[in-house]
Amino acid sequence: MAQDLDFIFNPHSVAVIGASDNPLKWGNWISKSLLESTWEGKVYLVNAKGSIVCGKETYRTISDIGEPVDLALIGIPAKFVPDAIRACVKKGIKGIIIITAGFAETGEEGKKLEKELLETARMGGSRIVGPNCAGIYNSAVGLNATIVSFLRGPLTLISQSGNFGLNLNFFAKKRGLGFSKWISFGNQADILFHEYLDYVKDDPNTRVILMYMEGLKNGREFLKVAKETTKSKPVIVLKTGTSAAGTRSAASHTGALAGSNEVYDAAFKQAGIIRVDNSYELLDVGEALAKCPLPKGNRIAILSDGGGDATMAADAAEREGLEIPSLSKETQEKLSEVIPIGAAHSLKNPVDFASEADLWCFANCSKVLLEDTEIDGVVICGGFGSYKDTFPGFENVEEKISPVISQLQRRYNKPVMLESNFFLEKPKSLEILSEQGMPVYGNVEIAVKSMSCLVKYRKYLDSSREDKEEPVCFSTDRSNRIKMVISKAKDARRMSLVETEARSILKEYGLPVSDFKLAKNKEEAIKIAKEIGYPVVMKIVSPDIIHKSDAGGVKLNLKNESEVLKAFSEVINNAKIYSKEAEIYGVIITPMEDKGIETVIGMTRDNTFGPTVMFGLGGIFVEVLKDVTFRVAPVTKRDAYEMIRQIKGFPVLRGVRGQKAADIDALANIIREVSILAIENPEIRELDLNPVFAFENGASIVDARIILR
Amino acid sequence: MAQDLDFIFNPHSVAVIGASDNPLKWGNWISKSLLESTWEGKVYLVNAKGSIVCGKETYRTISDIGEPVDLALIGIPAKFVPDAIRACVKKGIKGIIIITAGFAETGEEGKKLEKELLETARMGGSRIVGPNCAGIYNSAVGLNATIVSFLRGPLTLISQSGNFGLNLNFFAKKRGLGFSKWISFGNQADILFHEYLDYVKDDPNTRVILMYMEGLKNGREFLKVAKETTKSKPVIVLKTGTSAAGTRSAASHTGALAGSNEVYDAAFKQAGIIRVDNSYELLDVGEALAKCPLPKGNRIAILSDGGGDATMAADAAEREGLEIPSLSKETQEKLSEVIPIGAAHSLKNPVDFASEADLWCFANCSKVLLEDTEIDGVVICGGFGSYKDTFPGFENVEEKISPVISQLQRRYNKPVMLESNFFLEKPKSLEILSEQGMPVYGNVEIAVKSMSCLVKYRKYLDSSREDKEEPVCFSTDRSNRIKMVISKAKDARRMSLVETEARSILKEYGLPVSDFKLAKNKEEAIKIAKEIGYPVVMKIVSPDIIHKSDAGGVKLNLKNESEVLKAFSEVINNAKIYSKEAEIYGVIITPMEDKGIETVIGMTRDNTFGPTVMFGLGGIFVEVLKDVTFRVAPVTKRDAYEMIRQIKGFPVLRGVRGQKAADIDALANIIREVSILAIENPEIRELDLNPVFAFENGASIVDARIILR
Repeated sequence: MAQDLDFIFNPHSVAVIGASDNPLKWGNWISKSLLESTWEGKVYLVNAKGSIVCGKETYRTISDIGEPVDLALIGIPAKFVPDAIRACVKKGIKGIIIITAGFAETGEEGKKLEKELLETARMGGSRIVGPNCAGIYNSAVGLNATIVSFLRGPLTLISQSGNFGLNLNFFAKKRGLGFSKWISFGNQADILFHEYLDYVKDDPNTRVILMYMEGLKNGREFLKVAKETTKSKPVIVLKTGTSAAGTRSAASHTGALAGSNEVYDAAFKQAGIIRVDNSYELLDVGEALAKCPLPKGNRIAILSDGGGDATMAADAAEREGLEIPSLSKETQEKLSEVIPIGAAHSLKNPVDFASEADLWCFANCSKVLLEDTEIDGVVICGGFGSYKDTFPGFENVEEKISPVISQLQRRYNKPVMLESNFFLEKPKSLEILSEQGMPVYGNVEIAVKSMSCLVKYRKYLDSSREDKEEPVCFSTDRSNRIKMVISKAKDARRMSLVETEARSILKEYGLPVSDFKLAKNKEEAIKIAKEIGYPVVMKIVSPDIIHKSDAGGVKLNLKNESEVLKAFSEVINNAKIYSKEAEIYGVIITPMEDKGIETVIGMTRDNTFGPTVMFGLGGIFVEVLKDVTFRVAPVTKRDAYEMIRQIKGFPVLRGVRGQKAADIDALANIIREVSILAIENPEIRELDLNPVFAFENGASIVDARIILR
Repeated sequence: MAQDLDFIFNPHSVAVIGASDNPLKWGNWISKSLLESTWEGKVYLVNAKGSIVCGKETYRTISDIGEPVDLALIGIPAKFVPDAIRACVKKGIKGIIIITAGFAETGEEGKKLEKELLETARMGGSRIVGPNCAGIYNSAVGLNATIVSFLRGPLTLISQSGNFGLNLNFFAKKRGLGFSKWISFGNQADILFHEYLDYVKDDPNTRVILMYMEGLKNGREFLKVAKETTKSKPVIVLKTGTSAAGTRSAASHTGALAGSNEVYDAAFKQAGIIRVDNSYELLDVGEALAKCPLPKGNRIAILSDGGGDATMAADAAEREGLEIPSLSKETQEKLSEVIPIGAAHSLKNPVDFASEADLWCFANCSKVLLEDTEIDGVVICGGFGSYKDTFPGFENVEEKISPVISQLQRRYNKPVMLESNFFLEKPKSLEILSEQGMPVYGNVEIAVKSMSCLVKYRKYLDSSREDKEEPVCFSTDRSNRIKMVISKAKDARRMSLVETEARSILKEYGLPVSDFKLAKNKEEAIKIAKEIGYPVVMKIVSPDIIHKSDAGGVKLNLKNESEVLKAFSEVINNAKIYSKEAEIYGVIITPMEDKGIETVIGMTRDNTFGPTVMFGLGGIFVEVLKDVTFRVAPVTKRDAYEMIRQIKGFPVLRGVRGQKAADIDALANIIREVSILAIENPEIRELDLNPVFAFENGASIVDARIILR
C-alpha cells in the first residue's frame, strides 16, 4: 500500500508562518504563489506583527487561527523554528514544510536543532518536509507551495536540492514540459526519500519520475519501493556526491551521509532505475521516457540531411550500446524511391540525404525506416527547423512536415526523436513536433543517449518479468547452529571466526567447501589426513593469525604421513615465531584441490544499503583493476548472473588461452546463498571467500574469512 | 617553413563560377557574401547565361574575364565541374575552391571524377580546396567565401564537414565568439588537413585552433605539423567516425579512410592535441583556451551560491582528474570575513555561500581563493545572472559585480570560469563577463571539463619542454646486415622471419635477447647447449610453423645432454606430425630464464599514421582486457614511459602481491628502439615481442616474430 502523504499534498488549509509583504523575503513569494494558484483550499497568513500581507489580514500566531489547519509552511529564521513547530503541534497540524535552512547541513549545532524539531513533531504526530527545502507543487489540486510557477505535465520530480529543482523547472518550462508533482525536500529530517517515491508511485498523472539524489537515509526501503515503482513507471536518477569533494559538499548541503557510489550503482540496477551522469541529461532523458513508446530492441536507424551529424550520432550510438544495422536491400530501395535522384549520400544507415532537394525526405525516409521490422527506433538529426530561414521558398514547409513526422511515432509504435542544430532558436516547426509528442534535442549525443535509455528500460522490464525466482528458504535449525558458533567466538571476545568455524557456517548453506577437520596434534593430523585422502593441505588455525601464508602457516600438497608430520611441526613452530602470544587451536586439514579459475566472493555491510554482496576475479583483477561488482542482498539468480557478466574480466570465465569455460551457475549459486546468509545473520559483519576456484563443473571455496560485528 | 596558401586565403581577385540571382541557389548566397564582405579584392561573377547577378554584370565563361584571377569558387553541378577546372587551369588560376558535392563521397563513379579533377589541376599547377565543402573565411583581409557571416575573433576552425562548421559558427556568434580563419575543406582531394594547419599555425590572429576531423590522408605529416603548432597554440579536435557505423557514414561523407581510433588517440597525445568527445564541447573548450591563462597545476576551487551545483562540479572535477583540495585554515578564515555571518554552508571547498545575503560574495570569495597559492584556478557556479529577476533589490548589482570578477583572472593570472543556470537567458551581467574575457557556460560539467583541458595543455607544454631526448642514431652498418637477413627470406619467398633471424635483427638494436644458436642436428644441439649453459630451452625453427607450442615444438628447462637429445627427437618428430610439408631449419637453443612480469611489445603499420608501436601486459591483460597503448613511431623515451604508465595494469609493474617492481626503464628502451627499428626498416611490416619478461633489473625478449611486407 502506498504511503499516504495526502495530508501534505492535498490539504484543506495551509498556514504560511513568516508571511510577509517584503518583496525580498521568501514569505512574500510563497504567499503569492499560494494565493495565485488554482488550489481551492484556505490560506492563512501568519505574521508576527499582524500586518497586512498580499492584501490579506494576517494572524500574529498560529494559535490565533480559529479553524483547523492541515499544513504549515515555515520560512522564518532558524532560531525561531523550534517554537513554531511546538505551536503547530499544539494546534494539531499534521503536515509541516520547513523551508528555512541552517540545520543539519551546517554542522553539529544545526544537527542538534534539527533533532529537537524532529522530536517535537514526532511526539505530536506531525510530519516534516525539509528543513532546507524549496517546497512542493501538486498539479492534481493546483497547490503551489513554492516560489515559482509550473506547467502541468507528466513529470514528477523528487529532489534533495531546492536549487536543482528550480533550475530543472526553469528549463522544463522553456521546453513546454510540465509536472504532476514537484517535491523539494532538503535534509529529509523526517519524511525520507522512499516515502515520497512511495507516495507518487501510483499517481495517475505521473508518467516519469525524476530524482536528484545526494544520499539516502534508508537504502533498503528505497530499493523496495523503487523496485515496485519501476514495474509501471520509469525512474531516472541523477546521483551526485560521488567524489570525495562532492561528498564533502553534499554533506554540507543536506547533511546526508552518501553511501559508496558502486553500491548505489548496483542498487539502481537492481531496481531498474536509469542513472544519468550529467545535470543536463535528467530532463532530456525524462522527456523521451514521457513521450516515446519503448523500442522492442536496440536496432536504431539514423537519418540526417548531411554533414557530420550522422557520423557523430553513430559514434554516440556505439558508445551507448545501440546497434546501427546496415539496412536491407528492400529498405534501401524504398528509400531511393522517396529521395530525389542523386541527392542521397548514403542509404546504408546512417541514411544521409541532401535535404535542399526535398525537405519531405525528413518525413518520407522516417516512414520507410519505421516500416522496416529490423529497425526499433529512429533518430533524426541535422538542420530541420533551420530551412525556413536559410532557404527562401521553404518558408512554411517545415511546419507542414512536423505533424506528419510526429504522427509516425504513434502509428508505428516505435520511438522517434529529433535533434536540430536550430534547437535554441525554437522555430515553430520544432515547437509543433514537441507539442505533438516528440522529443526534440539540441545535440545528437543527448538524442542518442535518450534513445539508449528507452532501450535500457525496456530491457529491464523484459528481464524482470522473466525472473521467476524460487523462494528463499529460511531455516531455523541452521540458524540455531550458526548462532552457537558465533556465540562461542563472541564469548572468547573474538571479532573473527577461524577457518574451521567459517567453513561450518558455509556448509549450512550448502556451499561447496571441501572436507575439513581440525587437528590439535600430530596424531590427529595423521588420522585426519588419511580419512580425507592424500594429498592434503594443512593450514594453521589461530584466532590471532589472519594472514596464514605470511605466518608460514600453509603447507600444500602433502603426499604422505611423513610429510604431514613434518608439516605439522613446521606450521606450529612458524606460528609461534610469527606471534608469541598467538593462541593456537591446531591445524585444519583439507584435500589438495586442482587449481580452477580464481574468483572472489564477498559480503559487506554498506552504511546506506546494508548487506551487500561482491563478485570479482581473483588476483590482479581484484587487487590491481578493482574489477568487481556489487549488489544489495538478497540477490536473485538473475542478479548474480548479471554481476558475473558485468566484470571486465568475464571472458576469462568463458575460457581463454585454451582453458575450459567455468561453471557460471555454480558461482551464481554461491553469490545467491551468500546474500541469504548475509540477511539471516546480522551478527556477521563481513565475509570473504577468497579464492573460490571455478571449475568446468562446480566450484570450490578454498579459503574463507568471517568477521563479526 | 609554413605552408603558403596565401593565394587562396589572400587573393587579389575571385571568380564565382555558378553565380546566380536565384535565391534558392548557393551561387547566389556566396556571391552576396563576397560582395558584402569588407574584402577589397575584385569579384568576377560567372554565369552561363550571362545574366545580371546581385546587380552586377556577369561573364559567360571564365575565359571571358580579361584580367587575371587568383581564386575560383565553383558551385555548379558535379558533371560540369571538370570542364570548369580545365578552364580555370587554362586561365592560370592557382586556387580553386569546389563547393559542389557528388565526388569521392558518393562511391566509385564519384572517386573517378574527383581523380580527374585532381589530375587536371596538378598538371596546371593549380590547387584545390574541397570538393564537397562550404568555403573559407579569412578575417585578416575580410574575405568571406561562404554562405554565412562571421564575427572576427581568436578562433580558427579547420573542418572536414561543412555543416558542422556552419553550426559551430552559429553557436559561436550567439556567444560573441569570432574567427580569424574558418576553413571547410570537405573531401581534401588535393590540399590536405595538415597543409591547412601548417598555414594557420603562425597566424598572429589565431589564438586557438579547433578541428573537426573524420579522417586524415597523411597522418605522419599531420603529426609533424601538429607537434610544431601546439608548441605555441592549443589545438582542439573532435574526431568522429570512431564507430563502425560512424566510419560508414564518415566514408560516405568525405571519402576519407578513417584510421584506427586508438592510433588517432595516440597521435593526438604525442602532438599535444586536446581531444573532446562531444560535438558541443569543441567550442566550449576552445573558449576557455582562447580566454584564460593556463593554470600552474590541477588544484581547483569551486565556489557556489548553494544548491547541488557545487556537488555536481566536484563530481565532474574528479572524473576529469582535477583536484579539489580542502582549503587551508587561513583561506577559510579569510572567506568567513567576506561572507555574512551564518550565511556560509561550507568554507572547505567547494565553498558554498548563501548569496541572497550578499551577491558581492561572488567576487570577494573568488578573490580570496585566487590569492591562495595552493589554488590554481576557480570555477564559479550557480545562479549568478538570475538574481536581477528573482530578487527585487538586486536589479543592477550583478552588472556591477561582473567587471570585478573578470578582472580577477588577469590580476592573479589564474583561470576563472563561470557556470550560470541562467546562461540561456543571456542577462547583461553574463554578457559583460564574456566580453571582458571570461568563459561563461550553461552547465557545471562543461565548465569543469574546460578547466581540465587548460590543465592538460599546460601539462603537455611543461613535459614537452623537459623532454631532452638523445638524438636517434642511425647506422648504415646494421642497416646493411639487416637487409641481408631480409633479402634471404624474401628470396625464399617467405613473408615472415624465423626466430633466429628475428633475434639477430633485435641484437642489432642492442635489444635484450639472450644467447641463441640454431642447431641443425643432435650433435650441434648438444654442443650449443653446453656453450650456452644448462638449463636450456629448445624451440623448433621452421618458416612453416608459426605457433610453435601448438606444434609441440617447445621444450623448457632441459638440464643435461640426455634431456637435450630426447627433446631434439621429440621436437623434430612433433613438427613433422604437425605439418608434413614443413621445411625444418633445426632448433633454436637459448638459456632457460627466470619468469619475469610478462609484457608484450609490438610494432604495426597503421593505414593513416604508418609505423606504430604498442605496449601491454601479457596474457589476459592483452587477450581479455585489450589493455594496450599505442604511439606513432619514432617515440621518445618520455612517450615510452607514458605508454607504460597509461595501461590499466600498470600497478602490476610497480609490484603487487609481494613482487618486486619491474625495470620500467628497460621496457621503455625496448619500446624506443623498436620504434627506431620500425622507421629504419620499411620492409618489416609487423613485429611482435611476446612475451618480454620484465625483471627487477632489466628485461628479456623471450620470443620474437617479424613479418615482412
